[in-house]
Amino acid sequence: MEQEFASTLLENAVTELSRLPGVGRKTALRLALHILRQEEKSGVALGEAIINLRKGVKYCEMCHNISENDVCPICSNPSRDASTICVVESVKDVMIFENTRQYKGLYHVLGGVISPMDGIGPDKLEIDSLVERVSKGSINEVILALGATMEGETTDFYIYRRLGALPVKITQLARGVSVGNEIEYTDEVTLGRSLLNRTLFSDSFKKDY
Amino acid sequence: MEQEFASTLLENAVTELSRLPGVGRKTALRLALHILRQEEKSGVALGEAIINLRKGVKYCEMCHNISENDVCPICSNPSRDASTICVVESVKDVMIFENTRQYKGLYHVLGGVISPMDGIGPDKLEIDSLVERVSKGSINEVILALGATMEGETTDFYIYRRLGALPVKITQLARGVSVGNEIEYTDEVTLGRSLLNRTLFSDSFKKDY
Repeated sequence: MEQEFASTLLENAVTELSRLPGVGRKTALRLALHILRQEEKSGVALGEAIINLRKGVKYCEMCHNISENDVCPICSNPSRDASTICVVESVKDVMIFENTRQYKGLYHVLGGVISPMDGIGPDKLEIDSLVERVSKGSINEVILALGATMEGETTDFYIYRRLGALPVKITQLARGVSVGNEIEYTDEVTLGRSLLNRTLFSDSFKKDY
Repeated sequence: MEQEFASTLLENAVTELSRLPGVGRKTALRLALHILRQEEKSGVALGEAIINLRKGVKYCEMCHNISENDVCPICSNPSRDASTICVVESVKDVMIFENTRQYKGLYHVLGGVISPMDGIGPDKLEIDSLVERVSKGSINEVILALGATMEGETTDFYIYRRLGALPVKITQLARGVSVGNEIEYTDEVTLGRSLLNRTLFSDSFKKDY
């Protein structure tokens, strides 16, 4: 398209912004014009924050969560239970579990789930490093906390097979009716599993939340 | 909120991204994690494009459109009709009119419209510079091309008053039924004005579009 923009700087910014997920060229233009309307220092701060993020973030060599040091604050926190590993798909899932404030163990971020459709095999995920971590012997429990999807459960099963020979308890997040949900809006598979894995009612008010 | 993020770099990027219009903290986090998943060079390119945009863009000293030089390519193009000025609200409107390929004159970007509710008075807009441009005497027509809103028409009227003493024709974009629209979905005010300003039918197929 011939000279749609009066400025190649604008053209360039729109092109880069439109690579972001959910941002088309129209939205990118709106964002770029917004940046132009703000004070110079706020646009520069945005650009620098992005560059610093991309250049500066490291990944924890233990759990592969993002970190500013070689080992993240969770892995290096002596008050956390280092014998339990919660296996999650992404960095974001770590934040979500941390926000529940229910978990005091460590994490292991896989960086995805097995998905042959998207060309993601076990070799592209941090599964070997998980097996290595567990095989050192100080881990008592591995909690599989991937999504309750086809890909998540396939990955759960693959990890279960890989860890099978090691002396470690492997657990999975409970499947059941979501808190706050009506029975009539809960799917049959979930209901079936929540029935099979029903818990003692008296336990439900012993828990501290 | 105590340490929601494992990294202050991430925290900082999320904060800056969430200042963009329509981007909340959740979307900002999604964007930041997307940037982290991409190659380093693409994140850096985005950041640099934003900084270069904000630092490098100038405004045309004639029409206040964005430009990379002191005078923009439209104002400095000798094949354009320098006796006609189309007054628009924003840089984006210039692009929209350019895309119609119907207009060969120059522009004047106000940088907004008069809006007492938002604290925008005439002094915050490029109205004095418009009056100055017109008073130099080489302008035959000023086309008011602001939105058909309360604020747009207030601004039209204010400019009309300011230019009133000068020997220049002042026109306004036609109000009428949008091309492609049904009568039953057109509001009464628009219908009323389209009736008052009805045009000779034979003119409608003489126009070259």
